[in-house]
Amino acid sequence: MPEHRTTPRVKEILSWYQSDNPGTLANLHRLLMTGTLAGTGKLVILPVDQGFEHGPARSFAKNPAGYDPDYHFELAIEAGCNAYAAPLGFIEAGAAKYAGQIPTILKLNNSDSLSKLGGAPISAITGSVKEAVRLGCAAIGYTIYPASDARNAQYEALAELTAEAKAHGLVVVVWSYPRGTGVSKDGETAVDIAAYAAQIAAQLGAHIIKVKPPKALVEHPEAKKVYEEQKIPYGTLPERVRHVVQSAFNGKRIVIFSGGEAKGTDAVLEEIRGIKEGGAFGSILGRNAFQRPKAEALKLLADVMKIYAT
Amino acid sequence: MPEHRTTPRVKEILSWYQSDNPGTLANLHRLLMTGTLAGTGKLVILPVDQGFEHGPARSFAKNPAGYDPDYHFELAIEAGCNAYAAPLGFIEAGAAKYAGQIPTILKLNNSDSLSKLGGAPISAITGSVKEAVRLGCAAIGYTIYPASDARNAQYEALAELTAEAKAHGLVVVVWSYPRGTGVSKDGETAVDIAAYAAQIAAQLGAHIIKVKPPKALVEHPEAKKVYEEQKIPYGTLPERVRHVVQSAFNGKRIVIFSGGEAKGTDAVLEEIRGIKEGGAFGSILGRNAFQRPKAEALKLLADVMKIYAT
Amino acid sequence: MPEHRTTPRVKEILSWYQSDNPGTLANLHRLLMTGTLAGTGKLVILPVDQGFEHGPARSFAKNPAGYDPDYHFELAIEAGCNAYAAPLGFIEAGAAKYAGQIPTILKLNNSDSLSKLGGAPISAITGSVKEAVRLGCAAIGYTIYPASDARNAQYEALAELTAEAKAHGLVVVVWSYPRGTGVSKDGETAVDIAAYAAQIAAQLGAHIIKVKPPKALVEHPEAKKVYEEQKIPYGTLPERVRHVVQSAFNGKRIVIFSGGEAKGTDAVLEEIRGIKEGGAFGSILGRNAFQRPKAEALKLLADVMKIYAT
Amino acid sequence: MPEHRTTPRVKEILSWYQSDNPGTLANLHRLLMTGTLAGTGKLVILPVDQGFEHGPARSFAKNPAGYDPDYHFELAIEAGCNAYAAPLGFIEAGAAKYAGQIPTILKLNNSDSLSKLGGAPISAITGSVKEAVRLGCAAIGYTIYPASDARNAQYEALAELTAEAKAHGLVVVVWSYPRGTGVSKDGETAVDIAAYAAQIAAQLGAHIIKVKPPKALVEHPEAKKVYEEQKIPYGTLPERVRHVVQSAFNGKRIVIFSGGEAKGTDAVLEEIRGIKEGGAFGSILGRNAFQRPKAEALKLLADVMKIYAT
Amino acid sequence: MPEHRTTPRVKEILSWYQSDNPGTLANLHRLLMTGTLAGTGKLVILPVDQGFEHGPARSFAKNPAGYDPDYHFELAIEAGCNAYAAPLGFIEAGAAKYAGQIPTILKLNNSDSLSKLGGAPISAITGSVKEAVRLGCAAIGYTIYPASDARNAQYEALAELTAEAKAHGLVVVVWSYPRGTGVSKDGETAVDIAAYAAQIAAQLGAHIIKVKPPKALVEHPEAKKVYEEQKIPYGTLPERVRHVVQSAFNGKRIVIFSGGEAKGTDAVLEEIRGIKEGGAFGSILGRNAFQRPKAEALKLLADVMKIYAT
Repeated sequence: MPEHRTTPRVKEILSWYQSDNPGTLANLHRLLMTGTLAGTGKLVILPVDQGFEHGPARSFAKNPAGYDPDYHFELAIEAGCNAYAAPLGFIEAGAAKYAGQIPTILKLNNSDSLSKLGGAPISAITGSVKEAVRLGCAAIGYTIYPASDARNAQYEALAELTAEAKAHGLVVVVWSYPRGTGVSKDGETAVDIAAYAAQIAAQLGAHIIKVKPPKALVEHPEAKKVYEEQKIPYGTLPERVRHVVQSAFNGKRIVIFSGGEAKGTDAVLEEIRGIKEGGAFGSILGRNAFQRPKAEALKLLADVMKIYAT
Repeated sequence: MPEHRTTPRVKEILSWYQSDNPGTLANLHRLLMTGTLAGTGKLVILPVDQGFEHGPARSFAKNPAGYDPDYHFELAIEAGCNAYAAPLGFIEAGAAKYAGQIPTILKLNNSDSLSKLGGAPISAITGSVKEAVRLGCAAIGYTIYPASDARNAQYEALAELTAEAKAHGLVVVVWSYPRGTGVSKDGETAVDIAAYAAQIAAQLGAHIIKVKPPKALVEHPEAKKVYEEQKIPYGTLPERVRHVVQSAFNGKRIVIFSGGEAKGTDAVLEEIRGIKEGGAFGSILGRNAFQRPKAEALKLLADVMKIYAT
Repeated sequence: MPEHRTTPRVKEILSWYQSDNPGTLANLHRLLMTGTLAGTGKLVILPVDQGFEHGPARSFAKNPAGYDPDYHFELAIEAGCNAYAAPLGFIEAGAAKYAGQIPTILKLNNSDSLSKLGGAPISAITGSVKEAVRLGCAAIGYTIYPASDARNAQYEALAELTAEAKAHGLVVVVWSYPRGTGVSKDGETAVDIAAYAAQIAAQLGAHIIKVKPPKALVEHPEAKKVYEEQKIPYGTLPERVRHVVQSAFNGKRIVIFSGGEAKGTDAVLEEIRGIKEGGAFGSILGRNAFQRPKAEALKLLADVMKIYAT
Repeated sequence: MPEHRTTPRVKEILSWYQSDNPGTLANLHRLLMTGTLAGTGKLVILPVDQGFEHGPARSFAKNPAGYDPDYHFELAIEAGCNAYAAPLGFIEAGAAKYAGQIPTILKLNNSDSLSKLGGAPISAITGSVKEAVRLGCAAIGYTIYPASDARNAQYEALAELTAEAKAHGLVVVVWSYPRGTGVSKDGETAVDIAAYAAQIAAQLGAHIIKVKPPKALVEHPEAKKVYEEQKIPYGTLPERVRHVVQSAFNGKRIVIFSGGEAKGTDAVLEEIRGIKEGGAFGSILGRNAFQRPKAEALKLLADVMKIYAT
Repeated sequence: MPEHRTTPRVKEILSWYQSDNPGTLANLHRLLMTGTLAGTGKLVILPVDQGFEHGPARSFAKNPAGYDPDYHFELAIEAGCNAYAAPLGFIEAGAAKYAGQIPTILKLNNSDSLSKLGGAPISAITGSVKEAVRLGCAAIGYTIYPASDARNAQYEALAELTAEAKAHGLVVVVWSYPRGTGVSKDGETAVDIAAYAAQIAAQLGAHIIKVKPPKALVEHPEAKKVYEEQKIPYGTLPERVRHVVQSAFNGKRIVIFSGGEAKGTDAVLEEIRGIKEGGAFGSILGRNAFQRPKAEALKLLADVMKIYAT
């Protein structure tokens, strides 16, 4: 049952963002007061950018209903998600039809699997704050690749979009995915790297930060020394999640975790339990939701929300 | 006989674009309610950018009437095309003289065969939304080369032009032609690549997407796995076209197919039949039309339209 | 004797540009109704950018009067030229003193012989439409190097300047000089390349196109095939000029030819006769004019105009 | 006890900045009239950008209170610092809550330890003058790396931000840290390099310049000749500091020194004594302050201020 | 004794700039009617950018009064110079204090000796026309390096700044110093190169051009041919200066010469005599002035002015 009165927890969360203007606070409030988890301070978000990132067949052939942009709006609404995130095309296709029924997050940059780019990882900017405003979105989304040689271009674009979004009363959601010459492939989800990724997104002004679940690995030698000296625990997933959340302004920024690659229901739920136990603010589940038949997806999302609600 | 009343099919198509403003819907309506195919939801468009792309002699010497910009306006009008697309110079040469007689599409970027560029494929931006508005165009056209290392510059330019075009009530037509280090020469028209190209254009906000007829080939290994697992049929041209159209938001974006290289009349018509059978929204025929003597070209275009009208 | 009444030929030429606004048409009219050739539809223009391009001594030591910017204004006026073209400094030096006495063309980009640039040929932008308007110019001039790897930057800058110039009622003159990795040194003036250069300038929106007199050579193999199949004649200079003029929208764009390197009077006049016979709209004569003593230059220009007037 | 009346020394310092507008002078006055050292013309500033620069665990695990953005505001206020400097995220997290309680300096560019960048050292621009104004900051901060191959981009960005900041009544603080192919690793803090770094920041329009304490080393051979000929003393820290302060417009620009790497209390205080003796305007102490337990940090900062106050 | 009535010579000089607006003419008038040489049409300017270009010790240790920005204002005023030129920091430090006492020239770009840049020579833009206006300057100054591979960026920046400066009533002073892959080290001051440098600056719209005294050397083979054919004399310094002045629009642009490296008094004066004899408009003396004790500097400048006044 969605809550209609602003809960003390939501008020507490909003208090961390009091430098923001009322428009942004209202949209943050919308995100926190929508869906099954309304009022709990937890969020489950449906993101669908895989069509762009991996191509249509790899994304939607398993559950062909997903070729249709309406499907994802309806899935997110029926499942009681807090928000639906997608690139311009998918959002625009349903923005008028489903106007007001669910908060939307316009993903402002995207990558595909066709180009090699021949350089440092960097996504293309495919949307704008102005378009997000026109389409009635509650938030913008932007992916940075810390550890990329093209870091500066990404941080600078994000800084500009963030300032513009805040001036327009929007919420800023940052996907912070270390990638590039500064980390090993394995180290991309090392616990020190994930914590650092959360810190960078927070310092860049993100309201909501999305990272990948961290592994029991410390990548950087200088960091390793500190983790050992200070005995920072990172053996279990809850410990690692707790460290990442602490790294985002001592838990005063909303940090949510991705579900990662498509996998079995039990594996998904077990991971979510660990993430929840570590103090995460929620999950963002894409392929694990929309590639299942709708009934299964609704069941899975309900189970995930149950974990967060307790 | 052109239809004058908006048909249910046209209304249905317009309903997929309801996030657009009335100006853009009106221009989309103009494109769908013009010419022989008015009201059918199908389009046949005459594009003439070959003078820029391949040089004047290679484009027009075969039918020298085509050196003259007036010729193409008149050909498109007499043939009952839905629209005429060309670069700035050709459009401007007839924009006042033929004002209102046929919807025009200003091709905003172009390439020539003189430069090697010494880098990733990317066309030059040679027009603007402001010029399109000044010249009374119904739409802008823009070519992207997914799979090019210069992908980001192209997607970002298109994203900006698209937002500006929509704000000015114009329709956005995207030529989506994979090319560059991310695909093999042969794979440029592979079915997975063509479907991906359609998806990218749709996600970037295109109203109308132009791709090349796809071949019975799957380029990417990760895609191949999915095509086999999910048994996606692609043996025949109609099957491949159906898959590409589905990949453009489950058929909720207008996808049209190019005629490709100049060839014999029978070959053209047979290909069109396959494309039509696959559920395509129409064809865009350049060299196959304007390099024939006018009478032959009118006959060919009439035959093509007959296929789509039935 | 200059014509004062707009002649039918001038009206015909203006009719090809009817998408332009009255300000631009008026300036085009000024160019066509000034000087000895007023009303004939032919133009002889004096360009003096050699000081920038080759240095002062190489340009002016032979006839030292040319060091002085006033000299060129006076030469163009006395000779009855249609216009005088130069970079910012030279135009500005006389713009107030000779205001209204001769239409001027502000050359907006320039190159020098000092820098090697270490890359693809591209001139520096040294002026602006705003400066052209301030200085009372009738037109802007811009040089593109099709076949340069830096083609895109040049076409895009020209597209923007062209739109801005047209919005300000100015005429756009494009020097289209293929150069770079896309053509051999010899092929820069091949007939297919010159025709292609004229086509590109026309498609980019030029009102007046300047090319070099073409040689009896076809550079590109794909073009060669067409020239042979279609039996396009290019053995004589008039044939080649006719082909280039046709390539500029079937003669509906003004194409003029440069005089090339300084040479003897007879050689100049013979070339002009060939150019005229091919249907060219005129000539642009720099070094062959200002490097001669004034009396000789006036005589030569008068002889050239006589050829075009008949 | 903070001074409330503007002291003669503060008036003298302000007189060096009389080309600035009253808004900027008022903010400079705020910086000089805040905290324990108010009115002395000396400053002790707390900077906390290490979370961004070195990652959260390496910065805050030693004293975990520092994960929380509130902690640093409170530390700076309780310690009686003149100002608190941090990146956007940290400033924004407390800007409303601690509004008016301490002058803040928005650090406009930042670097992290994740990216290798694959090129010349240059930080990312992560904030703006507009954001500084919105957040009620007294100043902007910007880091330049003289000796970097990317020098021009940094000087040009700083020049633009400086002009904009001055137009908005803000103070400009420049971190001038030579780094890159133009200096050896050891030479980064050579006395000639530090003096040159201060001069560059002053010429670029900085109001307050932060450099590192210089070493008894002259890096450049051309400089070495002059230091020997003119017998410039640089054997002791006070001599070197005096030379650096002189190099900033003969002491007419505020020059402060960083505390450098975390070290023992005695070592910190001894260095500060030398810096003070050389005529420095103050210190900027980060890790040496916030990585200690709060009581210890307050004691250390009080001891440092005592040195400057006498 | 400064002249107060505009002299015929000053009126003549102003007549060459009549395309400029009254604001610019008034500032040019200020430059020509200030100081000892007021009314003579000659200028002696004090430039102090060496602190930025070579570092503080190398610039000011010899005469430590020069560390202080006030010193240079006072030196220029007492010496009766026509103007004082410096980067932003130095100008801003005295702009209010010495407001109106001497025309100032804001040097808009600067280089330092710390960075290697790893590419073509190009200075950083460190000021703006807006800042020049705010600081009450009479002119902007800008350095170009013709022969640099980065020529285009420099010419284009200068073209924009020049147009903006003229629109704001400022005078444009261009330092034209050939440097880079297009000339040999020795050829940087060859007579053909210096003349070409003056021509380029003039064509780019400079009001005042600063070049280095040319050597008896012709660098470019194509130029050498012309110098020999036309028997251009360049054996003596006056001959070379005359040729350079002629190359700047036949002497209709103000050309002044730098003093070059610090040297003995006799050497300086002898060079000035040669420069004056060649028809130069004056000198710009930096190190040779401010590195001497003040009394000596005043004596030297007075002697230089005496040469120009006769």
